[in-house]
Amino acid sequence: MLIEILCTGDEILTGKTVNTNYSHMASRLNEVSLKMHWGTIVGDSREDLREAFEQASKRADIVIVNGGLGPTVDDLSQEIAAEAAGVKLKLNQAWLDRMLAFYERRGRTMPPNNKKQALLPEGAEFIDNPIGTACGFAIDIGNARFFFTPGVPREMKRMLDEQIIPRLLEMSGVKKLTTLKRFHSFGIGESRADQMLNDIETDINKEFVKLGFQAHYPQLETKIVIQAEDKSETEEILQPIIETVRERYGNFIIAEDNATLEGSILAELARTNSTLATAEMYTSGAISARLNPPVGDPDPVLRSLVSRDLKELSRAVNLTLQEEAICFNTESAEKISTALRTEAASSYALATLLNIDRDKDGIEAGGDIIIGISTMGGSYCRKARILGGHEWVRLGAIELTLDVFRRHLMKLPIDERIDFEKR
Amino acid sequence: MLIEILCTGDEILTGKTVNTNYSHMASRLNEVSLKMHWGTIVGDSREDLREAFEQASKRADIVIVNGGLGPTVDDLSQEIAAEAAGVKLKLNQAWLDRMLAFYERRGRTMPPNNKKQALLPEGAEFIDNPIGTACGFAIDIGNARFFFTPGVPREMKRMLDEQIIPRLLEMSGVKKLTTLKRFHSFGIGESRADQMLNDIETDINKEFVKLGFQAHYPQLETKIVIQAEDKSETEEILQPIIETVRERYGNFIIAEDNATLEGSILAELARTNSTLATAEMYTSGAISARLNPPVGDPDPVLRSLVSRDLKELSRAVNLTLQEEAICFNTESAEKISTALRTEAASSYALATLLNIDRDKDGIEAGGDIIIGISTMGGSYCRKARILGGHEWVRLGAIELTLDVFRRHLMKLPIDERIDFEKR
Repeated sequence: MLIEILCTGDEILTGKTVNTNYSHMASRLNEVSLKMHWGTIVGDSREDLREAFEQASKRADIVIVNGGLGPTVDDLSQEIAAEAAGVKLKLNQAWLDRMLAFYERRGRTMPPNNKKQALLPEGAEFIDNPIGTACGFAIDIGNARFFFTPGVPREMKRMLDEQIIPRLLEMSGVKKLTTLKRFHSFGIGESRADQMLNDIETDINKEFVKLGFQAHYPQLETKIVIQAEDKSETEEILQPIIETVRERYGNFIIAEDNATLEGSILAELARTNSTLATAEMYTSGAISARLNPPVGDPDPVLRSLVSRDLKELSRAVNLTLQEEAICFNTESAEKISTALRTEAASSYALATLLNIDRDKDGIEAGGDIIIGISTMGGSYCRKARILGGHEWVRLGAIELTLDVFRRHLMKLPIDERIDFEKR
Repeated sequence: MLIEILCTGDEILTGKTVNTNYSHMASRLNEVSLKMHWGTIVGDSREDLREAFEQASKRADIVIVNGGLGPTVDDLSQEIAAEAAGVKLKLNQAWLDRMLAFYERRGRTMPPNNKKQALLPEGAEFIDNPIGTACGFAIDIGNARFFFTPGVPREMKRMLDEQIIPRLLEMSGVKKLTTLKRFHSFGIGESRADQMLNDIETDINKEFVKLGFQAHYPQLETKIVIQAEDKSETEEILQPIIETVRERYGNFIIAEDNATLEGSILAELARTNSTLATAEMYTSGAISARLNPPVGDPDPVLRSLVSRDLKELSRAVNLTLQEEAICFNTESAEKISTALRTEAASSYALATLLNIDRDKDGIEAGGDIIIGISTMGGSYCRKARILGGHEWVRLGAIELTLDVFRRHLMKLPIDERIDFEKR
């Protein structure tokens, strides 16, 4: 089944808006094993839309059109779709009523222009949009079935997942229920992860299990897509795979599905009613910035201190040591974290010391990281060296600090070697 | 002149990589008044590339192909280009020599695969790539001239600006020299900016002056594109426009061209050999994170303190006030900044207090911002209320703090009303 995406709109054509709708749609289709064949971008022009519709209708089985369903004169998708399908536009009274009610609930009158959004090509299949005024629709043009979706990202995403992908899966004859399982790990490189899991696809029911990786340094995302008849078959296939991945990745799994590393730290701090203070060097304060609960929620991070200067950091926690005694070593990291915990009266304190090599180009260039954790039960330390450019080292240091703290909270070893680390 | 962009590669087609190359190319062309007509995305497939080349050659005058110039088997651009143009591939010895020298300088041997990158269609025009091993080329296919560019963003960007746009401008008959002047402002909304400058396009030499806005909240970018015969004609047209914009925007211009708000603050601190400390509430430490000189450069920000809790912030600067005396008011902002300046022994200290409304949905929801500046000569204060969601208020508070500090350093009034502010 050949699938195309046709993105419309001058903002996309002229590059003013980056086309993240396209990449989202294509990724989601790919995740459920629907293969992309072609992408087209045209502006709000009748002639170009006509030509694009005609060409796509000859090339593809499925065409997903994005954009052009709005209320203004340059929104042309319904009009051109009707023309290309050789039918007239017809008012969809049910949708018009929904729009009127939508405005009424907000205490506003619907502008007359919006009525246009309820005009669909005759014979088109209505596709619901539960969160906006641009409904979707599907219609055959030439040999292809065209699906029309709104340009507003959250409306498009929901329509794609709830309405369009199920229809496409049914048309393509693949199994009915598609499930995506995601693992987020830190410390395992993509190629090693591939080696660790490469028997999964061949072992089990090959046809309906798909394994994929997406590296967002420093994290790695491992995606497993299962296609099955129903929930119980999904469980049956997925459960042993989940166990295998958990066993092989071990402590390197930082979160699963929509959970995050920082989210699990915040949850654990909330659960144990604990607080934290951080001191950071060369991280631009990103460690505390990541631990950022929604406004109104309790914030376990009492205070954060940021400085590139080690002596300044010690002074800021009122360390009364002689200045000469402060060096870039594990002792200083533990002393700073301990002093900070006392100053802030927090349950935990983290100190991340970072020393980035100045020589940027050498193959051996990188940075040294020392992480001190102070707790009521004593202080701990983790030292690491990461090779790479400044930003690479900085991002690695931020992630390593958060991960070491997660490991401490979860009572896991904090010293397991990560793949990015030089030992 | 109809221009198309054809993006190739499975990573782009399947959405794994967001197509920022497309948006960059289209924006740059738009900036120099070259109009985009069509965009196509295809994967690394011989058949699809052939079809895409053929269709584009019929539709367009100019086709810019991006990607597929690498050394691996799935890089097919040269091969399909030669086929489509009806010519053979031929070794470009000069480019092969350049590649060999490139590897030699790095003390490495060129992998044999890379030789492929020196095979160009016979009769193609060579287009230089001074920073990579994928050279570009141009060749006529059907009615269109095709330009081939590498997929690596920094190589593509340089080739586009230095090699391709000048050729396109010449072909399109527009004036030879295109100049882009940019102003970055904070505090003027896009629609008001448009009103303030809308006579510029009509007043002066309309045809060769193009005005555009791009809102990246909280900043606004104003772009002026001038096309002229040479440098002196450019000067002549541009100078009065620059003066007009500077006069009308006044103190709201935070930087011009490649300069930034944070860059001008860092430069001013360096020039006067001054230092800074910051205390921040609810900003995730973003104020100090923005003031982030390259590793190795002196860092004027001695320390930053971040906390959501006002009392915690006071304790962290060793304010010995009674806790009841610390409220969300201008006095506290001044006291905290003054105490912080003493603690850090810095020339300046900034304290940003932020109180975000908890009621998220109301039309009147927003946040209150109080900024305290402590200097050797005394302390100053700026208070503001910004309406909008949490992130909107947070971003506004960060920008307002940096701007107020810039204004103080430049001896400009810190209290001018910004458009986002409720007074």
